[in-house]
Parts: sequence; C-alpha cells; structure tokens
Amino acid sequence: MNTVATRVGDLLGAIDTPALILDLDAFERNLQKMADFARDAGIRLRPHAKTHRSATIAVRQIELGAIGQCCQKVGEAEALVRGGVRDILVSNQVLDLQKLRRLAGLAKQARISLCFDAVEQVDAASRAAQEFGVELGALVEIDLGMWRCGVPPGEPAAALARHIAVSPGLRFEGLQAYEGKAQHLKTYDERAQAVQVAAQAVQLSIDAIGLAGLECKVIGGGGTGTFMFEGASKLWTELQCGSYVFMDGEYAAIEGNDGAPYAEFEHSLFVLATVMSTAGKGRVIVDAGLKSYTLEKGLPTIEGQPKARLVAASDEHGTIALLSPDADIPLGTRLKLIPSHCDPTVNLHDHYICVRGGRVEAIWPISARGASH
Amino acid sequence: MNTVATRVGDLLGAIDTPALILDLDAFERNLQKMADFARDAGIRLRPHAKTHRSATIAVRQIELGAIGQCCQKVGEAEALVRGGVRDILVSNQVLDLQKLRRLAGLAKQARISLCFDAVEQVDAASRAAQEFGVELGALVEIDLGMWRCGVPPGEPAAALARHIAVSPGLRFEGLQAYEGKAQHLKTYDERAQAVQVAAQAVQLSIDAIGLAGLECKVIGGGGTGTFMFEGASKLWTELQCGSYVFMDGEYAAIEGNDGAPYAEFEHSLFVLATVMSTAGKGRVIVDAGLKSYTLEKGLPTIEGQPKARLVAASDEHGTIALLSPDADIPLGTRLKLIPSHCDPTVNLHDHYICVRGGRVEAIWPISARGASH
Repeated sequence: MNTVATRVGDLLGAIDTPALILDLDAFERNLQKMADFARDAGIRLRPHAKTHRSATIAVRQIELGAIGQCCQKVGEAEALVRGGVRDILVSNQVLDLQKLRRLAGLAKQARISLCFDAVEQVDAASRAAQEFGVELGALVEIDLGMWRCGVPPGEPAAALARHIAVSPGLRFEGLQAYEGKAQHLKTYDERAQAVQVAAQAVQLSIDAIGLAGLECKVIGGGGTGTFMFEGASKLWTELQCGSYVFMDGEYAAIEGNDGAPYAEFEHSLFVLATVMSTAGKGRVIVDAGLKSYTLEKGLPTIEGQPKARLVAASDEHGTIALLSPDADIPLGTRLKLIPSHCDPTVNLHDHYICVRGGRVEAIWPISARGASH
Repeated sequence: MNTVATRVGDLLGAIDTPALILDLDAFERNLQKMADFARDAGIRLRPHAKTHRSATIAVRQIELGAIGQCCQKVGEAEALVRGGVRDILVSNQVLDLQKLRRLAGLAKQARISLCFDAVEQVDAASRAAQEFGVELGALVEIDLGMWRCGVPPGEPAAALARHIAVSPGLRFEGLQAYEGKAQHLKTYDERAQAVQVAAQAVQLSIDAIGLAGLECKVIGGGGTGTFMFEGASKLWTELQCGSYVFMDGEYAAIEGNDGAPYAEFEHSLFVLATVMSTAGKGRVIVDAGLKSYTLEKGLPTIEGQPKARLVAASDEHGTIALLSPDADIPLGTRLKLIPSHCDPTVNLHDHYICVRGGRVEAIWPISARGASH
C-alpha cells in the first residue's frame, strides 16, 4: 500500500528516506562465511527467518546450502512457504488449534516441524495433523536457563518425548536447545562456557530419551554469538543463527576470541536517514525515529561520523548531538544508522533497498513483516 | 498480505493472537470527550494521525467536529487523503523535492499545510507548489526547548515568515508551537507552567511577525498531557492531540490536577496475548513480544492481574513473573496488555480488531502503517 519512491538504478543520494538499506556485498560475504563454516564443521544450517522475515533472503541462504529455515510464528511460516521454502522448523510452541490447522495446511506443501513444552500443545497438534492427513515433525524444547519456554532437561523432556511418540500425526525428531542468554555474553570464554553447560543439559536429555527407546536425530540451537561452539560440539546437529546476515549494534558490542570487538560478520543493514533540520544549535535532526528503528537495545550508531552521536529519538525524528565545535553536518546530508537490534528494526519496514557500489540494485519485499500471528 | 484469522462476530476468546484490540466503547468516549472540550473551549481540534495511522479513525474524529488531521510524514498524508481526509497539516519539516512534489500532488485533492525551519525547505516547497500549480499552507515552527526542530522564537521566526510570504505557491498561516517536553511532566502544575513559558515564546513570535505586517491565523500545538492549558490560553488556535484516543502507560504515569493518576481518558488500546507456555516455575510466557509492542517507554502492564508482571520481552515472547505463590495463570489464558507507548505500538500492526461487549464488531486497517517516508 505504501508508495515506494525509490527505483532500481537510483544512486544512494536519491533513495527516499528513511529507508532500510542492505549492502549486498557485505550481506553476501556474511551469507558465504556462515555457509562455509557449517559445511566445514559438518553441521546443518537452518538460519532463523525471524531476523530477515524475507523469503527472498531465505532462498538465497538455501541456495548456499542451508537445509531450510527456522521461524517463530505460523504467519512467518506461511510467508516462507509462499516464497518457495520447503523445510521449516517453527522453533517455538503453538497452542491454538486454528494456528495448528494453518501449519498442517502448509505441511501439504512443505516439511513442517515445531517445538513443544506441554502435553496440551502436543494433543492439539496431533489433532490438526490428523484432520489434514499430514505428519508434523516434533521437537521437545528444553529450558537452558533463558527464563522463557521449555521443559527441564532430562526426565521431563523424556516424558514429553514419549507422549509425542504415541501421538498420531506427529513424528518425534529430537530437541530444541537454544541457549539464548549466551548469545550476547561479553567475552568469548563466557560464551564458550555457557554452551558447555548447555551441552550437559542436552546430553542428559538425549540419554533420558534414549532410555525410552527414542532417538534424537535433531538437536537444534546456536546463534550468531555462539555458533562456533555448537558447531564444534558434535552434539548439536542444526545451527539456527539469524543475525549474522546483517549484524547489529548489540552483536558489535561483544568480543571475539582476541578480545577485540566481535568481527565475525560485517554490518550490512542500515537505516538511511536525511538531515532535515539544522535550525538548533549543537544538534542536527534526521528524518528517522523510532518508527524506523527500535530502541530496546539502545540508540543506533552513525557510520563514519565520529564527531556526532544520536542522543534521542521520537516517532519520526532522531536528534544528533554534535560533539565538537567544528563538527558540521549540513542540511540534506545522508547518514547511515547502524541499528542496535536488527530483527525488530527489519520488522518496521516493507522493503530492503539493496545497494551495491552506491547504486540500488534490487528492492526486496519483507514478505513476513508483521507476521507475528 | 498477512492472513487475518479473526472474523467479525468472533468472541474475545476466538481472536487470533497477538492482536491489537480496540475497545470501541472506551475509544468513542475518548473521542467525544476531546471533541466536547474543544467545542466548549472554542478552539479548533486537529488530532494527530501519527498516533492511529488510520483514515478510518481520522474520519470518525472529523465527524465529531475536528477540522482535519495532523501528520508527521508525507506517506501518512497520502494514506489520509486516499481515505477521504481533506485538510491536513504536516506538523514537520520536509526538505526533499520529490517528497514535496508528492505533497503538492495531494494539494489537488485536499488542503495541505506544512512546517518550516529553514529557507532551503521553503524554496523547495515553493518550487514544488509552482510545478503543480497549487498553494501550500506554511507554518513557521518555533523551538520551545524540545531539542528537536524549529527556529528560535521572535525575530528568527519573523525572518522565515517574511521569506515564506514572498515565496510563490506558499500561503503564510502562522506558527507551529508544540511543547513536546511538557506532555509527560509528572504533575499538573509542572505542565501548566511549561505551557505558560511556551506561551511567552509564542507571543514574542506573533509580535515580531506582526511587525512585518503578517498575521498568524494559526497557532498549532498542544498534546494529550497539556491540551487544557492551550485550550484556555486564547493564544493557540488548534489542538494537535493524538494519544487521547487510546491512552497508554506513559500517560497513565502522569498526574491529574487532583494529584491522582491522570484519568482524563480511558485505556482503549490493548495487545491481546495468549499464555503459550507454563513449563517454567514462577513464570508464564505469552505469545506477544517486541514485534507486538515497543519498549522504549518500558514494558506493558497487564490488565486485571495484580499478582503478575511482565518482566521481559524478546521478539515474540513476553515473560510474566508470578508475584505470589497462589498466582496461577493457566495455559491458553488471554491477557490484555496495556502498551507503554501507543504510537509506535500501533505502527507494528496491520489492523485494529475492534471489540464491543466482548465481540468483534469491526476490523479496521491501519492504513498508514509503515508510512514513515
């Protein structure tokens, strides 16, 4: 419905702002680097679509070797299947029967799995699968201390696995074991240790489930901050990294194994903004605010402007303080803002404006934007 | 593009979640109360569409006496004109010529005004207006200490007004004088005093502009926290309140003139969420996270659950801590979350699910969602 005033072929200076721009060179290097890692480590890659919400990007990841996609929501799964993705794990619980019917409908076109932490979810999913005559893959999510979903590791996981195994329409596959709280721990060693602790809980659960005569063929987990540890673990079988395609301020704030800022991946995602007001002293105002980027992880940083800092944002304005008397950012200047948190920032926009060599090369729809239902 | 799984006639318990729900009774009382105030105070009401981003709601406000709408962005103006609104003030600066052409195009169908704080903006708008053979209304925005846009009050405002007055295609109308920082001051007296201070700057500017032989027919400003002061001032001519239609946690946190929590308006806007996991001890998890509400003003509160508090949110999860041993919120429970900040929360959703008496009565598109360009 919204006008797209930007056209393929436009130079950077002609892009209608605010705009979510994707640096294709950096983006493609990020995609290739993770694909290479997974291939070399002998682990399957199932990137998380909650980051990009785009079937276009999902297909690119799969072309480089990813086995499919993760998503969090049924609405995302619908957008991905419409866009050609044929293997999807909903890395989340679904309780509502009507939502489960939508998933069962998708299972006519794609391989669909989902996660469980309660008998009620299992029974509802079994009913929906039987109604549609399909089989849904089923993972037991274990709680690794994120204070979110998941059953306790060990026997509680085995108990739910046994229930899944006798539920028609469901195919027990293994464990969802995502250590979310580990992703943004500051140091490399802290993250390594967190994954080691998680691995014990995973092994305990595999063993308990094995006693029930069931096999965990899939152990899903890993993120952009810890993938190297799960990849080397010989325990996890699928990596679910999402943010690596874009990077963001939150991941840039952690450290790599050399103690320097984390640089496994490059910033490829920016909010392009224009200086629209310079009437006030000591500040300039850009035309992008908290309807163009989110603040729950802090304000964006500004690329290439060491003498300026974004200090406040309202709905449609960003206030940039000039940090030295000789700082001068004229009216009309284009600035690239690096989002602090890529996933919810992407979700504010309808399109990626894809740029290479200073020129718009493509415009990709964010096909699952808003699909949180 | 997103599936709307909810249908008119559904009971509250059948609404697909997460959903942005609008309590029509409370909403209509809010609309009527502000309309009555403006009529009784003899001041024009031009509500701000940045809050609701919906032509449907704009038309409802105009039916009750509002003279038109404010918006912040050209994209919002486009959606409003498409939806039948015929008098729009862009309460913001527009610098880009192509955006100004879009506004000039709209001026063929509607009365369009906008704000200025720089000669460059005036010259570009004049050019666009001449290209289209239309006249655009022009307000000078004065800086009332918000550390955002606007020229200093007094002679700088008069200088820009003189420039507007000699620019073909522009019609000088007056001042944009919004005291944004006053809206959320805690006490009634602090807010009253802030508007008194702002009034001095407004009068100074009116006088300076009058010396240039120009008349300020329009003085725009006021918000949900201060409208009673501008309304009584005999200085402001148009109120630009937005949030009053919904209320939110941020406005509920200020005080009324009796020192009690601000209760001029009722909460009419909620994010409806479902408890999807109860596997962890001491907490339950809902299916709505920071892609369904924003956090820059804090976490939402939960209606009618004194023993539970939302304590964390990730993309698609809200973690609710149970505050007492006897608190029990079963799997599948529907909870109404009160957003802390209504404007950006609305912008995450595609539709209002409009409810009366526990039943869905209408589904309204958020027609300017994402229209920040």
